[in-house]
Amino acid sequence: MKVNGKQYRTIWLDEENPHLVKIIDQRLLPHQFVVEELRTVEEFAAAIRDMHVRGAGLIGAAAGFGMYMAQVRSPQNDPDYLRWAAEILIATRPTARNLAWAVNRMQRAINEEATPAARERRALTEARKIADEDADYCRRLGEHGLGIIREISRRKQGPVNILTHCNAGWLAFVDYGSATAPIYAAHKAGIDLHVWVDETRPWLQGSRLTAWELGQEGVPHTLIADNTGGHLMQHGMVDLIIVGTDRTTRCGDVANKIGTYLKALAAHDNGVPFYVALPSSSFDWQICDGLAEIPIEERSDAEIRYVSGTLDDGGIGRVAIAPPHTRGANYGFDVTPARLISGLITERGICGASEKEIMNLFPLEDG
Amino acid sequence: MKVNGKQYRTIWLDEENPHLVKIIDQRLLPHQFVVEELRTVEEFAAAIRDMHVRGAGLIGAAAGFGMYMAQVRSPQNDPDYLRWAAEILIATRPTARNLAWAVNRMQRAINEEATPAARERRALTEARKIADEDADYCRRLGEHGLGIIREISRRKQGPVNILTHCNAGWLAFVDYGSATAPIYAAHKAGIDLHVWVDETRPWLQGSRLTAWELGQEGVPHTLIADNTGGHLMQHGMVDLIIVGTDRTTRCGDVANKIGTYLKALAAHDNGVPFYVALPSSSFDWQICDGLAEIPIEERSDAEIRYVSGTLDDGGIGRVAIAPPHTRGANYGFDVTPARLISGLITERGICGASEKEIMNLFPLEDG
Repeated sequence: MKVNGKQYRTIWLDEENPHLVKIIDQRLLPHQFVVEELRTVEEFAAAIRDMHVRGAGLIGAAAGFGMYMAQVRSPQNDPDYLRWAAEILIATRPTARNLAWAVNRMQRAINEEATPAARERRALTEARKIADEDADYCRRLGEHGLGIIREISRRKQGPVNILTHCNAGWLAFVDYGSATAPIYAAHKAGIDLHVWVDETRPWLQGSRLTAWELGQEGVPHTLIADNTGGHLMQHGMVDLIIVGTDRTTRCGDVANKIGTYLKALAAHDNGVPFYVALPSSSFDWQICDGLAEIPIEERSDAEIRYVSGTLDDGGIGRVAIAPPHTRGANYGFDVTPARLISGLITERGICGASEKEIMNLFPLEDG
Repeated sequence: MKVNGKQYRTIWLDEENPHLVKIIDQRLLPHQFVVEELRTVEEFAAAIRDMHVRGAGLIGAAAGFGMYMAQVRSPQNDPDYLRWAAEILIATRPTARNLAWAVNRMQRAINEEATPAARERRALTEARKIADEDADYCRRLGEHGLGIIREISRRKQGPVNILTHCNAGWLAFVDYGSATAPIYAAHKAGIDLHVWVDETRPWLQGSRLTAWELGQEGVPHTLIADNTGGHLMQHGMVDLIIVGTDRTTRCGDVANKIGTYLKALAAHDNGVPFYVALPSSSFDWQICDGLAEIPIEERSDAEIRYVSGTLDDGGIGRVAIAPPHTRGANYGFDVTPARLISGLITERGICGASEKEIMNLFPLEDG
C-alpha cells in the first residue's frame, strides 16, 4: 500500500543484499517513518517481541524471514541452531497463531533439503512464499468482504460506517491487511464509506497505525476512544464492524486485541453485523474453546502507565498518566466467543463462526 | 478524604473571606496538587466547563457556590443577573443532571428573600447545604453499598475484586464519592478488597484521579486499559462493578462516562453484579427513556488526539498520539439501559433499576 504515494510492503528483502531484510519500525509511526534492517535471529526476535513489527500476518512473515536468516547463519548447518532459533522466535508473542505456523512451516521446508546451500535457497523461497501468500490471501479476502460493504451501501443513504479495533491493516500483514482489505477494496470501487477507528489502548495501534494508513490511502475516518463504539452503535452510527484476529479456533472463537469482545457484545446488543477477517494461517486447527485454550499474552505495565507520542517541540517522548506508585495490568488480547460473530471473511470466502461451516470451507484441515 | 494524610473536601469556602471559594484544580492531578480560588460567575463556569472540577456531585456543589457568588456580585440585586448566571452555568455541561438541579434549587431559595443581604445569606446557606447534603448522602450510600461487598467477601476466599470506570470518587463529589463510598467503607471495615481502575480515555479520570485517591487512602488497586474489563470478567477476576452516574432517569436508565455501557454488557454476559451508586440529586425525574432523552455532551477532539501527563523531566506536557491530519469524535457519555443494571445504591438504600422500585424509594418525586 502507499506511504507518501510510494508503494510499500511491510517486510522485504534488500534488492542488493539477499542476507538483509528490511521492515518499517512501527513503534515510531505515525510520528516518523523509519526503515530498519534485520540480520540476525536475535534482531528478528527483538523486533517481534518489542513490536517493531506486529499484527497476525506480519508476525508470520517476519518469523519466516527470521528462520531464513537462522539458516543463513547456522554454523556448519547445525540442526540445533535452527531449533534454537525456532524456540526463541515462537516465545516472543504467545497469543499469535501465525508465529508458530510460519516457524513450523519453515522448519519442515528447510529440513527437506540436505546441503547448506540447498537449505538456504529453500528457506528463502519458503519465506518469500509465506509473505506472498499472505499478501495474496489478504487481497482475496478483501474481494470477498467487499460484497458485504456493497450490500450495505445499496440499502442506505450516505456513507457506510465501519468500525474497526486495533490495526488489522496492511501494517499488520504484508500488504492490504485483513480487516482493512474489504475497506480498501470498497474505497477503490468508489463506495462511499467512513471508518470509526478505535484508538486501541494501551499501544494505540488504532490512532498510530490504522489512522495513518487510512490517511495515506485517502479513506475517510474518525478517531475515537475505545469507550465510544457502544454509544455509536446504540445510535445507529455503525453499519458494520470488521476486526482481525491473532488466533481463531476451528470452532470460531476469536482471540484479538484486548477490547474486541466488548465491541462484539455491543454489536450483538444492537444488531450490528460483526465480522472477523483472516487469512487461514490465523486458524489454530488444534483447539475449539478459545477462552480455555488460547494463551493470553501479558505485557509490561509501562504501556499502561505511559503514553508515547510527538511532543509539542516535534520530538518523540512519553508522558506518565498515573501516580508514580500505581501499577497496571496489561493483557494483550481477549477472546470473542463464536456466538457473537456474524461471520469469518477468509481467502476462500465467507463462512459462519462454527466448526461445521469452517471445516466445510477448509475440509483438509483435520488439526 | 485524605491528601498526603490531611483531610480535604473538593470545594470549600475560605476561612477568612466568605466571598472566596476554593477548589482543587483536577486538571493537574495526579501530577500536581494545586488549590484554585474562584470569585466570579465566569470563573465558576470556566472551572466547570474546562473540568477544573468535574463529577456529578461536585458539579452540583460548584454550581451552588457559583450561584451564591452570582448573588454576591449581582449589581443592585438585579434578577436578570441571576438568570444570566443560571443560564451560563447550566450551559457548561449538558449531560450533568446535578448542574440544573443545583442551579434551580439556588434560584428558588434566593428568590424567597427580598433584600440583597438576606438573599446573600440565604444563598450561602443553601450552597453550603447542597455541599453538606452531597457529602452526607455519599456517606450514607457508602453504608448501604458496604453490605453488598461484605456479602461477597463472606462467600469467597481472597480479596473482593471491584471494577470501576471513570472517577465517581470523592473527587467527583464533595466527599466520599458515590462508586467509591462503599469501597472506602469496606476498606475501613477491614474487608480484603482490590479495585480494577479503568483508565477512562480520553480524559483519564481513572488513571489520574481514581488511582490517585485510592492510593491516598491506601486501597489496593490496579490500573487497566478500558479494553480490559471484559477479559477480566470472562476469567472470574471481577466480583462486582460499581460506577457512578451523571444522570439517571426515573425508569433507571443511567448516563455515565462513555464506555460504561460496554462494561455493563460484559457484566451481564458473565453474571457479574453491576451496581450504580448515586445520591438522589442525580435523578432526572422528568424522563424515562435515557437513550432518547438524555443529551450527550460532545467535547473537543483535542482530548482524543493528545494525551497529557508528566514528562520525563518532571514537567507537565502532552504528546500527540495520531497523525496530524486525523480528526476525532469525543462523546462524553453513554447510556446504560436499566435492563443491564443489578441495582441502584442511593442514600435511602438499594433498589432495582426500574420505575416501580425507584418511585417506591422516592415516593414524593413526581417529576
